[in-house]
Amino acid sequence: MSGVIVTSPPRARAEDVRALLGHGVATVHEAMGRTGSLGPGLRPIQQDTRIAGTAVTVLCWPGDNLMIHAAVEQCAEGDILVVTTTSPSTDGMFGELFATALRYRGVRGLVIDAGVRDTAELRAMGFPVWSAAVCAQGTVKATAGSVNVPVVLGGQCVRPGDVVLADDDGVLCVPRERTGEAVRAAEARTAKEAAARAAFAEGGLGLDRYGLRETLVRLGVRYESYEEHVRNGTVR
Amino acid sequence: MSGVIVTSPPRARAEDVRALLGHGVATVHEAMGRTGSLGPGLRPIQQDTRIAGTAVTVLCWPGDNLMIHAAVEQCAEGDILVVTTTSPSTDGMFGELFATALRYRGVRGLVIDAGVRDTAELRAMGFPVWSAAVCAQGTVKATAGSVNVPVVLGGQCVRPGDVVLADDDGVLCVPRERTGEAVRAAEARTAKEAAARAAFAEGGLGLDRYGLRETLVRLGVRYESYEEHVRNGTVR
Amino acid sequence: MSGVIVTSPPRARAEDVRALLGHGVATVHEAMGRTGSLGPGLRPIQQDTRIAGTAVTVLCWPGDNLMIHAAVEQCAEGDILVVTTTSPSTDGMFGELFATALRYRGVRGLVIDAGVRDTAELRAMGFPVWSAAVCAQGTVKATAGSVNVPVVLGGQCVRPGDVVLADDDGVLCVPRERTGEAVRAAEARTAKEAAARAAFAEGGLGLDRYGLRETLVRLGVRYESYEEHVRNGTVR
Amino acid sequence: MSGVIVTSPPRARAEDVRALLGHGVATVHEAMGRTGSLGPGLRPIQQDTRIAGTAVTVLCWPGDNLMIHAAVEQCAEGDILVVTTTSPSTDGMFGELFATALRYRGVRGLVIDAGVRDTAELRAMGFPVWSAAVCAQGTVKATAGSVNVPVVLGGQCVRPGDVVLADDDGVLCVPRERTGEAVRAAEARTAKEAAARAAFAEGGLGLDRYGLRETLVRLGVRYESYEEHVRNGTVR
Amino acid sequence: MSGVIVTSPPRARAEDVRALLGHGVATVHEAMGRTGSLGPGLRPIQQDTRIAGTAVTVLCWPGDNLMIHAAVEQCAEGDILVVTTTSPSTDGMFGELFATALRYRGVRGLVIDAGVRDTAELRAMGFPVWSAAVCAQGTVKATAGSVNVPVVLGGQCVRPGDVVLADDDGVLCVPRERTGEAVRAAEARTAKEAAARAAFAEGGLGLDRYGLRETLVRLGVRYESYEEHVRNGTVR
Amino acid sequence: MSGVIVTSPPRARAEDVRALLGHGVATVHEAMGRTGSLGPGLRPIQQDTRIAGTAVTVLCWPGDNLMIHAAVEQCAEGDILVVTTTSPSTDGMFGELFATALRYRGVRGLVIDAGVRDTAELRAMGFPVWSAAVCAQGTVKATAGSVNVPVVLGGQCVRPGDVVLADDDGVLCVPRERTGEAVRAAEARTAKEAAARAAFAEGGLGLDRYGLRETLVRLGVRYESYEEHVRNGTVR
Repeated sequence: MSGVIVTSPPRARAEDVRALLGHGVATVHEAMGRTGSLGPGLRPIQQDTRIAGTAVTVLCWPGDNLMIHAAVEQCAEGDILVVTTTSPSTDGMFGELFATALRYRGVRGLVIDAGVRDTAELRAMGFPVWSAAVCAQGTVKATAGSVNVPVVLGGQCVRPGDVVLADDDGVLCVPRERTGEAVRAAEARTAKEAAARAAFAEGGLGLDRYGLRETLVRLGVRYESYEEHVRNGTVR
Repeated sequence: MSGVIVTSPPRARAEDVRALLGHGVATVHEAMGRTGSLGPGLRPIQQDTRIAGTAVTVLCWPGDNLMIHAAVEQCAEGDILVVTTTSPSTDGMFGELFATALRYRGVRGLVIDAGVRDTAELRAMGFPVWSAAVCAQGTVKATAGSVNVPVVLGGQCVRPGDVVLADDDGVLCVPRERTGEAVRAAEARTAKEAAARAAFAEGGLGLDRYGLRETLVRLGVRYESYEEHVRNGTVR
Repeated sequence: MSGVIVTSPPRARAEDVRALLGHGVATVHEAMGRTGSLGPGLRPIQQDTRIAGTAVTVLCWPGDNLMIHAAVEQCAEGDILVVTTTSPSTDGMFGELFATALRYRGVRGLVIDAGVRDTAELRAMGFPVWSAAVCAQGTVKATAGSVNVPVVLGGQCVRPGDVVLADDDGVLCVPRERTGEAVRAAEARTAKEAAARAAFAEGGLGLDRYGLRETLVRLGVRYESYEEHVRNGTVR
Repeated sequence: MSGVIVTSPPRARAEDVRALLGHGVATVHEAMGRTGSLGPGLRPIQQDTRIAGTAVTVLCWPGDNLMIHAAVEQCAEGDILVVTTTSPSTDGMFGELFATALRYRGVRGLVIDAGVRDTAELRAMGFPVWSAAVCAQGTVKATAGSVNVPVVLGGQCVRPGDVVLADDDGVLCVPRERTGEAVRAAEARTAKEAAARAAFAEGGLGLDRYGLRETLVRLGVRYESYEEHVRNGTVR
Repeated sequence: MSGVIVTSPPRARAEDVRALLGHGVATVHEAMGRTGSLGPGLRPIQQDTRIAGTAVTVLCWPGDNLMIHAAVEQCAEGDILVVTTTSPSTDGMFGELFATALRYRGVRGLVIDAGVRDTAELRAMGFPVWSAAVCAQGTVKATAGSVNVPVVLGGQCVRPGDVVLADDDGVLCVPRERTGEAVRAAEARTAKEAAARAAFAEGGLGLDRYGLRETLVRLGVRYESYEEHVRNGTVR
Repeated sequence: MSGVIVTSPPRARAEDVRALLGHGVATVHEAMGRTGSLGPGLRPIQQDTRIAGTAVTVLCWPGDNLMIHAAVEQCAEGDILVVTTTSPSTDGMFGELFATALRYRGVRGLVIDAGVRDTAELRAMGFPVWSAAVCAQGTVKATAGSVNVPVVLGGQCVRPGDVVLADDDGVLCVPRERTGEAVRAAEARTAKEAAARAAFAEGGLGLDRYGLRETLVRLGVRYESYEEHVRNGTVR
């Protein structure tokens, strides 16, 4: 591994981060052309919380949280710590002592593709976490890693300074060069969803709204009454 | 895949559905001779909620929710939407817009062997969901599937019109021809459980109540004091 | 399988159990030299609960809870039931009827490397559970197993009378011969954590507090500004 | 569970079974409209073997192979034994003694959604097996189950008498009413594949052969040289 | 972790090891009352190989193979190296250089609940391995662990000097105090299996040989012709 | 998703690819500072085969292999096709027809983080494959994706033109800018391994060769005879 701590990477604009916080992860994901989701494996330890911030990335050796200590110093107001390991790990690499140090620096939360512990305390202090596991197993501080290099979590590449948006549906990464575009697209998507919601609330159907009846016809999907279906012998 | 939308399948009797709602999933599962459980993989996104209804089934292509749109139109008051995919998928195929449309039609909830999103919104609007995953990843509307054909979730076959019962312990399917029998058996089981509960609350033991002391003897299970056990050298 | 029920095994001292309850699972795990964690696979069905007690161990055949019935009789005030199966299983082997019987005897909770059911009822009655799965699937009472023999859960050996400590971070086992030592080490660790917490809350860094700057140097981890890093061509 | 042994279920026609054996699992799956695959979880213990036969189905309790003993008697020349359990299990429920008994009766192989053992001996005697696990762990004979009822393996319903086709790509189920249709479709598919193979061997492209260039255009997929792509700033 | 290297632990008798090698893992597992199997997770990298030897145990930190180096020196003629990690790991902790050093000392093979690499080379040199994963990912040598302490693999406790028996069906542990008993029981079991094999080869049935017809009756399993079964309406 | 097909990306130098082919995946991984491994999830369908080539990358929708058709046209002599999906999938997206087309163009093999089928045929024609699954399940050609954009497999980012090296230990990615460096480091590593192998074959120990005795002392690992260890009471 490279073993480098990169200082002061460019960060996405704070006003874009603020704007993205107004939309859910699923909405921004759709608005971005269905990209950026970190998948179903990173789950929140709390409920009904959404955060947005700029990534400070950490690459650790499994069973070792040395580089999280190094990363704390690189964090600034508005950041989110994004941690992964060189091999899969469920160890509890992060707990409330780290959260205390990060909170002092204005860090908004943690996304970690490994384990976390002190979860009751983290919820009590209101420090939000998305993790791959919850586990008491502790770690050592013996092996090199890197801070603020591109890392991969949930099949997604996250670079330092990219925007991380997280809520109950999981975690999303928006590349720092595309945040302005993302904000505009999310606003458009939110408006579109509001119109659809109003229509559906009064009995409208996606089949009509999205022109899907023709799609079904084109794909050869046919309608059969249950009686016909039984007669055709395809019901077991 | 067949690509068929079956309309108006026979549904279990509403009064049986109502009666089954009075019993927990575990109780009805036992009452039915320990059948019908959809296993540990389908988990609720909310807590302390139980629903019962008649299944409208949907078979989708992975990464594609076209057929859910077609299924909405087939739903009626008292139904539960039951969705699976032809291959395993964790994509977020369903969200609050669908729930809005389904609620208009009186649908009671969703059971999906794939992913769901907008979970905070779904909880807020009180639309209950049991799913295999929570994930923001969106889907397309491009490939044919079927509505109201038999589908398999959690190793269990669910047919349109079967009763689906779901609570914190998971999801149960009761074949629509057997709901009357299930109601009677569940009532008997509930009474039996109440008697056992009362006995256990006063110190009764299953060993005596269920005649298990003889079973242990028959199976050759022996009692040893710890001292004997150590002396026999089998303690490491 | 041996098929033995061992009666009255030695139990850890009640005052040590009480003292350990004052510390979290993660803290005691660290204090014990990072040993004893049962890993990320055993999750609580409730939130914000911690228990400590002495283990009554049960080894069952998969799909069979006969030996839990036998174990109830062996339980005493202050015990925690610890159940596993000879092969992996997710069946719901335990529910509120068992909890009713155990509560009568003063048992503090359940740790089970298999499934549990009646989870809503268990939460309602305040009986805490850590399990590998939640599932309605029921079990039979047909095959022999053992009570109060050493069992393995989550890669950890648990013997009857050992202390089990469980909270939101998972489950820990403290060997009954080492509980005094564990109490003293946990107290020292808690004091050390309090001091670190105070320092971190005022901006202190683990890098300085734990002497990690030298470690980074020794390991060859270098600092680079983002501009240098780009110039070195290692940013993609 | 029902606990029934159904005798002499109708079986698919032997000549259809013979004809299907001439085609691979993937080919027949495609020919049947991409249905019937039992998924990636059932793997062969041998290589380069294909079998086809009529299913004798077995539903066992986990950790218990009693019903396999009952099923042996129901097997006839040309059958394949298809075993599953009421809950997930990896136990080694089947070994070479069973294979010896089945071979006497002309059974062609085993498909089991659980574990198998004696794998070296099974390969040596040429008895083919597809299983979810290989494991030495033995089972008891204590709990009821059923023979020749519909069972679910790998998300697929298999009924007694259905055709099972298995090779290195996995296992396929063809409903016994559809075997004639499957044979004809497989023959057509095989011919079509042969033509495609010949074309591809000489440099033909699926893009042209299947008219996919238009699909790409319709979907908005664009071609960019690497230089344009870099200039557009979308390369990281 | 304790951090101790225990020298010269007692080892099981060589003649018992030799005798056990004459029986398969499944046979000895059954003979020992169905105990000792390390489960389906440890798979051989080669086919058709069986080894037996005395365990030298190693407990490593994840991502770290320092203690394997320490363990090599503790190995003697007839040993098998048994390695696990304090947290789950798939890293390739062991390769052909280790195998070269172990072969010099007469070590018979490796059992590792983590990853292995150089698998082609290991097969070529005839050094047998059972592992949880195959992975090229390398490890460091930075964190303490132990040699020749009890370790847990696959839910089974293995102590130094215990007999390890491994073949295509997986790995078995026989406690060193019970090897004589295991040899005698395995011989009896092998004889019993030979008799059953001969009977089954001539058409005998387990139903008769093991008295299972009565078991079926006692459990209420009934026989129905397919026609009756259909008439009873339980066929879908 | 972007929906772009990038043509003629820069490729690593053919002579570097040739040189890397002379070293195993594990060796080059170590030589590159333990980077680039795609982990234990991508397994070969054949044994004892090693390939090296330049990546043509493909990003598909789950259940859809349209973009593999588009990618074939972008392949040239010496390439390796590298395929992944936007969500996890086990479908058999690739079979021998694709291999026939790729072989015509001089492609050396396939790496796919999804399923493959026709495995017997692929082995027979000598077209090597590393995949996450083997499954007969087929796919459609309906949804856009991209060719020759950066993709993530096994937690590793692979860009078009990077070198892919694959053998029995898995798959490695060497960034195209670093291949010269990788060749030199691999040669040095291979020489170093040869020297270690020679020393170990004559009884040398890693403890001495790598100076690990001091490491053990520094970490506080102590040696105890078995008798001392028992006396210290730490053996259970």
